[in-house]
Amino acid sequence: MSARVLIVDDLFPNVKLLETKLGLEYFDTIAAMNGPDAIAICEKGLCDLVLLDVMMPGMDGFEVCRYLKNNPVTAHIPVVMVTALDQPSDRLRGLDAGADDFLTKPVDDTALFSRVRSLVRLKAVTDELRQRALASREFGIGDPLALATAETGLDARILLIEDRPGSAERMAGALRQHHAVTIEPDPQAALRLATEGGFDLALVSLDLAGFDGLRLCSQLRSQDATRAMPLIMVAEEHDRARVVRGLDFGVHDFLMRPVDRNELMARVRTQVKRKRFTDALRGAMQASLQLAVTDALTGLHNRRYLDNHLGALFADEAARRPGLAALILDIDRFKAINDSYGHEAGDEVLRTFAERVRQDTRPVDIVARYGGEEIVVILPEAGLAEARAIAERIREKVEALPFSVQRATRTIPVTVSIGVAIRHPEDAGPGDMLKRADIALYRAKAAGRNRVEQQAA
Amino acid sequence: MSARVLIVDDLFPNVKLLETKLGLEYFDTIAAMNGPDAIAICEKGLCDLVLLDVMMPGMDGFEVCRYLKNNPVTAHIPVVMVTALDQPSDRLRGLDAGADDFLTKPVDDTALFSRVRSLVRLKAVTDELRQRALASREFGIGDPLALATAETGLDARILLIEDRPGSAERMAGALRQHHAVTIEPDPQAALRLATEGGFDLALVSLDLAGFDGLRLCSQLRSQDATRAMPLIMVAEEHDRARVVRGLDFGVHDFLMRPVDRNELMARVRTQVKRKRFTDALRGAMQASLQLAVTDALTGLHNRRYLDNHLGALFADEAARRPGLAALILDIDRFKAINDSYGHEAGDEVLRTFAERVRQDTRPVDIVARYGGEEIVVILPEAGLAEARAIAERIREKVEALPFSVQRATRTIPVTVSIGVAIRHPEDAGPGDMLKRADIALYRAKAAGRNRVEQQAA
Repeated sequence: MSARVLIVDDLFPNVKLLETKLGLEYFDTIAAMNGPDAIAICEKGLCDLVLLDVMMPGMDGFEVCRYLKNNPVTAHIPVVMVTALDQPSDRLRGLDAGADDFLTKPVDDTALFSRVRSLVRLKAVTDELRQRALASREFGIGDPLALATAETGLDARILLIEDRPGSAERMAGALRQHHAVTIEPDPQAALRLATEGGFDLALVSLDLAGFDGLRLCSQLRSQDATRAMPLIMVAEEHDRARVVRGLDFGVHDFLMRPVDRNELMARVRTQVKRKRFTDALRGAMQASLQLAVTDALTGLHNRRYLDNHLGALFADEAARRPGLAALILDIDRFKAINDSYGHEAGDEVLRTFAERVRQDTRPVDIVARYGGEEIVVILPEAGLAEARAIAERIREKVEALPFSVQRATRTIPVTVSIGVAIRHPEDAGPGDMLKRADIALYRAKAAGRNRVEQQAA
Repeated sequence: MSARVLIVDDLFPNVKLLETKLGLEYFDTIAAMNGPDAIAICEKGLCDLVLLDVMMPGMDGFEVCRYLKNNPVTAHIPVVMVTALDQPSDRLRGLDAGADDFLTKPVDDTALFSRVRSLVRLKAVTDELRQRALASREFGIGDPLALATAETGLDARILLIEDRPGSAERMAGALRQHHAVTIEPDPQAALRLATEGGFDLALVSLDLAGFDGLRLCSQLRSQDATRAMPLIMVAEEHDRARVVRGLDFGVHDFLMRPVDRNELMARVRTQVKRKRFTDALRGAMQASLQLAVTDALTGLHNRRYLDNHLGALFADEAARRPGLAALILDIDRFKAINDSYGHEAGDEVLRTFAERVRQDTRPVDIVARYGGEEIVVILPEAGLAEARAIAERIREKVEALPFSVQRATRTIPVTVSIGVAIRHPEDAGPGDMLKRADIALYRAKAAGRNRVEQQAA
C-alpha cells in the first residue's frame, strides 16, 4: 500500500538517499531535519510512518520517539529508528522508547521496503477504526485514544510455538517475568489452541522440525478467530528471505536467533500494546453503539430500541402464535416527589424503580424507559393472565419497600400503576397494543392508583 | 496479506493446480466443486475471496457470482472469475454479474497473485468497517448492509487523467452516458482537482507524456484527501509489470488499451459501487454515534450529551470569563395534557415545544431534553439579563400560538415555566448552577406558572 513516509535526519545527503530509494518504490516522502519539525508534521497528521535518525543535535531520535509514542494524537504512527550503530543497547533504547522497529545504516533495501510496507498495511486497518473512534470523542462519548498511551503491554497471554526445548525454555523464562506463557511444540495443536482463543500474541518458530512455520503463520492470519492476534516469527539469521515473505503477508514482527532476551521483551510488549489499543478501539465503538439504544439515567433500553424491536416482533409472523403482551408502568404522583424532594431524588427513584422492574423480568423481555416516569415492558410468549401476574408482582415489590434517596438519608414510599394489554389478531401495529395498555393504565390511575388494570375484553 | 481463498471448479485437477499455486504463496485455500457448495461457504463467512470457474454443470459461474453479489451477507466478498475463453463477451458477462475481475486459463501466476493480494488488502479495510456496521444492526439501528446491494454505481463524478485527446474523448464519450466526467491532461492540475474533492473515481493513464502516471497514483493513494477515491489505471499491453506494481501499492483496478467501451463501463461501475458501500458504512457508523447523544422523540440532544459537554464547559478555564447561563424549561400541567388527550398528543406537544425552543437558540447553545417534559438550555457567553431575555422570548412564543395535535385536528393552549441561573465563581460543578435554575423554576411554578424566574441574587 502506498503511503507518505516522513524521513527525519539532520544530514541532507541521508535524507536525499532515503527519498530516492522510497520514491523509486512509489512511496510519497516528506522530510524534517530536526526533532521538533518532525513532531509538528506528525501532529498535523501529514505522514503514515516515520523513519527516524537516532543521532541528531538537540532532541535526539530516542526523545522524539518517546514524545510521539506518549502523545495520543501521534501514538498510532509507526516509527522505525535508523542508526549507524548496530548495538543491541541502541536497539533496546529505541524499542523502549516505543519504536516499532530498527534499521541500521547502510540501510538494506529489502529490509527497508518490507518493513515499511508491513507497518503501513497494519496502520491502514487501525486508521479506519481510529477515525470512527475520533468521531465518538467529538460527540462526547469517551476518549478511546487516551487508552493508547495508558496501556502497559504487560500481563499478556502468550502462545510460544517452538519445538526446541532449550530455546522454548529460555524464551518462556524471560517472558514469564511479565506474562503467562503456554509452550506448544506441535503446530497442529498450536493452531487448535490459538483458535480456541484467549491469547494476546503468538511467537512462531520458523525452524519447526518437519513443518513450515511460515505456513502456520499464514493459517493464523487467514482465520477469523486468530486474525487479530499479533504474530512474531523467530528465525535463523540465514532465513531473512522467509522473514521478508512473512512480513509481506501480514506477520507483525520477527526476532533473529540467538534471541536477545531484552529485545524479546520489548518487541512482545510493543505488539501487545498495539493489539490492546485496537481491541480498545473496537470496544469503544461497540459501547458507543450500545449507548444509542440505552437510557442514560436508568441504564434500561430507550424508546428507540423499543420502537425498533417491537416493530420487528410484530412483523415476525412466527411470533404471532405464542402471544405478546405489553405492560406500561407509571410511578404514582411522581411530580410530587420531584417537587418535594428535588430532581436528584426523583432520579434516584427512577433508577431504583428501573432496577426493581428489571429484577422481575427475563432477559428475553424488553424493558424500556418510555417517557419521564414511565417504563414499558414487552413480554414475548406471554398471555394476559401471565402478564397480569408479572405486573402484580412488580406492583407489590415497589410498594413493599420504600425507596431510599438522598444518599440513603431518607426513604420515600412509592407506588406504581400498571396497564396490561396483549396483542390482538386485528392489530395493525404495536401502537394498537400499547394504546390499549395506556387506556388500562389510565383506568388504574382513575381507580385510585397503585393498581394493575388490564385492557377491556 | 494472507487470506483464505475459495477455489470453485467442477474439475478436480483444476482445483489442485490452484491450491498448489496459492499454497506456495502462503494463501490458505478451501475448495467447492459446484455453485451451491460455494455459496454455502461464502454465507458462512469462511473465505476472503472467491476464484470462480465460469463453466460448471448446473449453476454456472455467472449465476453463482450474481447470487453472491445480490446477497447482503456475501456482497462484500471479492469474486475473480476464471475461464478458458478470453472472450470480451465473457469478461463482460462476468463483470455485469458483479465480478471484481477476470483471469483466463492457463492462469498467469503474476496476474493471479497480484490480483488476489490487491483484492484481499482492500477487503481487510472494508471488513473492519463492516464488522462495526453489523453491530449497529444487532442493536436495531438501521441496516447499512442492505445498501451494498441497493447501490447502482451510476451517476458518479469521474476524473479522467489522460493527455491523449483522442483516447480521452473516446472514454469520456462512453462514460458520459451514465456519469459526469472531467478530463484533465496535466498531472499536477489533476492532483489539485482530486484533492479539492468531490470525485467518486479517477482513471489514470500510465502513458502521460513526461510524467509517470504510477507516481500520480501513489500520490493520490498517500494523501488523506484522496485515499478513499478508487483509481483505475489505463495502460498499454506491454506495460503489465507497472500495472502489477500499481496493484501492489493499492491501485484498485486497471484497463488495457485499446480500452473496450463496455469493460470500461463495467469496471467503473464496480469501483463506484464499492466506494459508495464503504462510504455508506462510514456514514452509518457516524449516524449511530449521533444517535447515542440524541433524544429519539424530539431530536434534541439528550441528557448524556448535556452532562458530557456541560462538564467540559465548566472545566474550561477560558470559558469562565464570558459567563455561562442555564435555563430549565418545564411545560405547565403536562400531565393533564397526557391524561386528557393521550400520550400521542403529549408527544406531539413535546416535539413542537422542542422545535420552538430550538428556533430561539443559537447553534453554540446546548439544547437538551432533560426529563419527561423538561428541556435544558445552556447559553455559553451569556449573562443573567441576556439569559432572562431569551427565556422570556421563548415563554411568549409558546403561549402565543396554541399547539396543534392529533394530526392537526385540534389545538391545545400550552404554557411553559422557566428557571434561569448563571454560573457562580464558587460553583463546584455544573450541578450547582442547574440546581439554582431548578429552584427558580420551582418559584415560577409556585407563583402561578407561565413565568420566568431567576435565581435569587
